[in-house]
Amino acid sequence: MTTLSRRDFVAGSLTAGAALAASSSALAAPDRNAIYKEIERRQADSVARLQEWLHQPSIAAENMGMQEGSELTRKLLQDAGFQHAEIMPTKGAPGVFATLDAGARNTLAVYFMYDVKQVDPSEWSSPPWEARLIDKPNVGKVVMARGAVNQKGPQAAFLSALHAIRGAGRKMPVNLVVVADGEEEIGSPNFPEVVLAPKVRAALSKAVGLMLPEAGQELDGSVTIELGSKGDVELDLIASGEKWGRGPTRDVHSSYAARIDQPAWRLVQALNTMVTATGEPAIDGFFDNVKPLSAAEQAMLDVAAQRLDEAVAKESAAVKVWSRDANFRRALEDGVSRPTLTIEGLVGGYTGPGGKTILPHRMTAKIDMRLVPNQTPDELIGKVKAHLAKRGFGDIEVNVNGGVNETTTTSPDSALIRAARATYKRYGIDALMWPRSGGSWPGSVFTGEPLKLATADFGVGYGDGAHAPDEFYLIESKNPKVLGMHDATKSHVDLLYALA
Amino acid sequence: MTTLSRRDFVAGSLTAGAALAASSSALAAPDRNAIYKEIERRQADSVARLQEWLHQPSIAAENMGMQEGSELTRKLLQDAGFQHAEIMPTKGAPGVFATLDAGARNTLAVYFMYDVKQVDPSEWSSPPWEARLIDKPNVGKVVMARGAVNQKGPQAAFLSALHAIRGAGRKMPVNLVVVADGEEEIGSPNFPEVVLAPKVRAALSKAVGLMLPEAGQELDGSVTIELGSKGDVELDLIASGEKWGRGPTRDVHSSYAARIDQPAWRLVQALNTMVTATGEPAIDGFFDNVKPLSAAEQAMLDVAAQRLDEAVAKESAAVKVWSRDANFRRALEDGVSRPTLTIEGLVGGYTGPGGKTILPHRMTAKIDMRLVPNQTPDELIGKVKAHLAKRGFGDIEVNVNGGVNETTTTSPDSALIRAARATYKRYGIDALMWPRSGGSWPGSVFTGEPLKLATADFGVGYGDGAHAPDEFYLIESKNPKVLGMHDATKSHVDLLYALA
Repeated sequence: MTTLSRRDFVAGSLTAGAALAASSSALAAPDRNAIYKEIERRQADSVARLQEWLHQPSIAAENMGMQEGSELTRKLLQDAGFQHAEIMPTKGAPGVFATLDAGARNTLAVYFMYDVKQVDPSEWSSPPWEARLIDKPNVGKVVMARGAVNQKGPQAAFLSALHAIRGAGRKMPVNLVVVADGEEEIGSPNFPEVVLAPKVRAALSKAVGLMLPEAGQELDGSVTIELGSKGDVELDLIASGEKWGRGPTRDVHSSYAARIDQPAWRLVQALNTMVTATGEPAIDGFFDNVKPLSAAEQAMLDVAAQRLDEAVAKESAAVKVWSRDANFRRALEDGVSRPTLTIEGLVGGYTGPGGKTILPHRMTAKIDMRLVPNQTPDELIGKVKAHLAKRGFGDIEVNVNGGVNETTTTSPDSALIRAARATYKRYGIDALMWPRSGGSWPGSVFTGEPLKLATADFGVGYGDGAHAPDEFYLIESKNPKVLGMHDATKSHVDLLYALA
Repeated sequence: MTTLSRRDFVAGSLTAGAALAASSSALAAPDRNAIYKEIERRQADSVARLQEWLHQPSIAAENMGMQEGSELTRKLLQDAGFQHAEIMPTKGAPGVFATLDAGARNTLAVYFMYDVKQVDPSEWSSPPWEARLIDKPNVGKVVMARGAVNQKGPQAAFLSALHAIRGAGRKMPVNLVVVADGEEEIGSPNFPEVVLAPKVRAALSKAVGLMLPEAGQELDGSVTIELGSKGDVELDLIASGEKWGRGPTRDVHSSYAARIDQPAWRLVQALNTMVTATGEPAIDGFFDNVKPLSAAEQAMLDVAAQRLDEAVAKESAAVKVWSRDANFRRALEDGVSRPTLTIEGLVGGYTGPGGKTILPHRMTAKIDMRLVPNQTPDELIGKVKAHLAKRGFGDIEVNVNGGVNETTTTSPDSALIRAARATYKRYGIDALMWPRSGGSWPGSVFTGEPLKLATADFGVGYGDGAHAPDEFYLIESKNPKVLGMHDATKSHVDLLYALA
């Protein structure tokens, strides 16, 4: 659910921000003015509520503050009007499940995460749990804290929308179901048990879709709506004397190389069979199940190629040329349509400065594969193994080393996506439609069987620094291209009415 | 000069220790009995002198105690009768140069090192600088300290031999020149300036050879005389987006792999060209200058194949089979006659546990090449570069990452080697003659132009744990197969008389 894993892999920023900042009142339907005024009246409360949330560290990777974080999240949901709010224990950190029954026709599901990434406080210019308000040049007044943009700030804006609707004496226009993940930053290993618990699943099954509050704007004001994500699987490929039956079974002095075999060369040779001369995946059958892009997806890419700036896209990817010397339109298509085979790292033997005269018994390649519809992780793991075995490298171990994500897909014609696009238009934003993110997330528990929910990140607003020091979320914008927390809150009000 | 770099790469231990421990007095020429008695009388002094030396840490890698160590070494040489003993400053740790003019016909040069490897005291069962005397089961009374066997113990035995000869009122049978290295454990980067300083070079040029005191016995009592060493050169081969002009110039998210190139695959492909399908070096011209083994060297291998135990050799190398499925005789020959191309390590991108979804901009292979006569480091570095360039991999950086050693060779017919063999025979040891060590050392400053000295490690005795915790040197043997410091001292007396 992080910026890193699900955003930022479009292609570079839009060439120009959409026209923004037409006055809020002019855009608002007359019957929402009371709500918008309530947002303004409650601005100090909204910021204080966000700061209270940010003061609570909850780091799943360090099992720190998870109980406190889940209880605070439950309390925040209760305060926002959820009649039912319940902590859901798991083998790991608990989730939170909450429902708000407004007697409305439609129900919206909302994904929260309450855990945050680790911090090294020495790297921060402002202490990461103090959530200080800071004037940031060219941006405005921001709250700086771990979790500010990923995702407590955007989630707090959503909660403020609910407070404002209640405060204005209005009935909630849709029913709401919130599921809050406590382990997003470690790959959500236990979240499916929360989502698929019978009562949670029953509640979610009524929803028109799942919305993930985000600060959706780039610094140029643009917003991208991603209609899914690639799957991924990460593998360790390991050559070793133990499994090979040749070469040493422990590291030995490199002088032995004259008369013993080297697992390191074996790994190099096995890897070499996995790509073509130009570095394309060459695993047998790797592309067999790739679903071609639809005409609608191709049309999205045509628009993107017009609107996006290739120079910015190349700078984001730190390259001078695209693979296969593709033009920009082709590179954009490659980004969404091609599965990938990446060496994340090579490690084994001596890895420090200078040299050390050893002959390693074991060598590892860390591999990442990204999948497109209709590929599955199990299919590609099997193809890697079969490919190696067929070439006499059956001794190379193929070990899944982390989380595995299926692809996710949401239709551009779903009610949620249509409502999101229409709401952005109220803010002068013509959201770029994007077939799928290059990043991955464990969202197939929502988009796959049995729930088959549409999903969408949503929210105007801005922030930066997810997973990095000095993470921040914009409260009061001084930059005409991006919007602050007030408008972010307003955009959630507008989305709820659009879904009503 | 370490056990690690110059010994232990023969082929495994001898099948059985030579018959040992015939009584010393029966073996000794009558006129040396007074000297032998003097060794016995001075045994406590000898051990105390060694302990004094061991109490002084001198770690070149940490620039610790180098001045103190060099001064102590000079004092020990003066005490042993050297008329001239001088500290030789270098850009790094100083060397020591000493001469003892006995008015004798022949001169012997002796190599000392006074630096030692780093320690982690928490890993030691006895504090590494206390040099405690400890009873070691199945071995005897040992002194345990960093530097005990590598090389202060054997060097102290040599000094004790000089004290005993003087103590018995005898004239030294040969003149002596000592050069002491303070940076052996970091590759002796500055030692050539000591050796080739005009007065040192002049003194060394009179010598019949250079003797390196060692504890030469394996635990089965056997001794191997190595008639040279392979050369070596260590390289970093680096693929990077910066040099390639394709792929990223910083690490980026792995989702970019669908449309950008990967330096990691490029390194894999470049490396793959450097070996045959069975992992043999395939660099153009790699074997061109390899000098075939002589008939005398082949004969040594015939003897070795009879005397060495293949099962022990395989256990030492941690393998079940030799390269190319060679038989033992062939594997022994490969060990001494083949140059090597080894991957010491692969490192780049994410190298920790699990996975991390990055696409690295830079990937490094750490390569070690071992050379045989008549190859040179510069030749092989040039061949690696030419090989890569010819195959379109001219962007791969080829950087020497450490010390570079030429091959060294000593004739089995040199006076020093003949004297060493003959002396070992006095102790019942039929030393195994070995064409060259698989390890390397910066000895070409002695064996090459202009000095062209024969070199030989020499000394009975036993110790273990060089570069490891609980390093020790045997003082009083309780194991009938290995000899203690008394006999080690005696063997140095006998060598000097054999050279007279």
